[in-house]
Amino acid sequence: MVKPEIASATMHRLCKKAGAERVSEAAAKELAKALEDIGVKIAKEALDFAMHAGRKTIKAEDIEIAARKIMGK
Amino acid sequence: MVKPEIASATMHRLCKKAGAERVSEAAAKELAKALEDIGVKIAKEALDFAMHAGRKTIKAEDIEIAARKIMGK
Repeated sequence: MVKPEIASATMHRLCKKAGAERVSEAAAKELAKALEDIGVKIAKEALDFAMHAGRKTIKAEDIEIAARKIMGK
Repeated sequence: MVKPEIASATMHRLCKKAGAERVSEAAAKELAKALEDIGVKIAKEALDFAMHAGRKTIKAEDIEIAARKIMGK
């Protein structure tokens, strides 16, 4: 597996927030990988929205709408 | 907004990966926040799977199945 961009210590903290007592290192890396995949999908969608609005810069509003779309809300 | 756990520099890198030239700092923070929310959801689901399997430790396989479920694949 390619080393994830997102730090696995951060993933351990997210899992604690979710109520987990213990999280294997492989699980933390798997979560980082899953979130990166989702993050790239959201960013691609956000870029489409930005370009459609005639911008080259992704703004928070682009991310917001893209995240809603990807998560099917 | 609460300071996101996930570093915004990491979010900038994800956006570049997605093909974006420029990303506002607010957008990077918004993406971090969205991924954290999704991450906690996945972790909660993974914890359910782990406990159902009689474990207190979240393993990579729990994350995998939880991520698929959350992402509706």
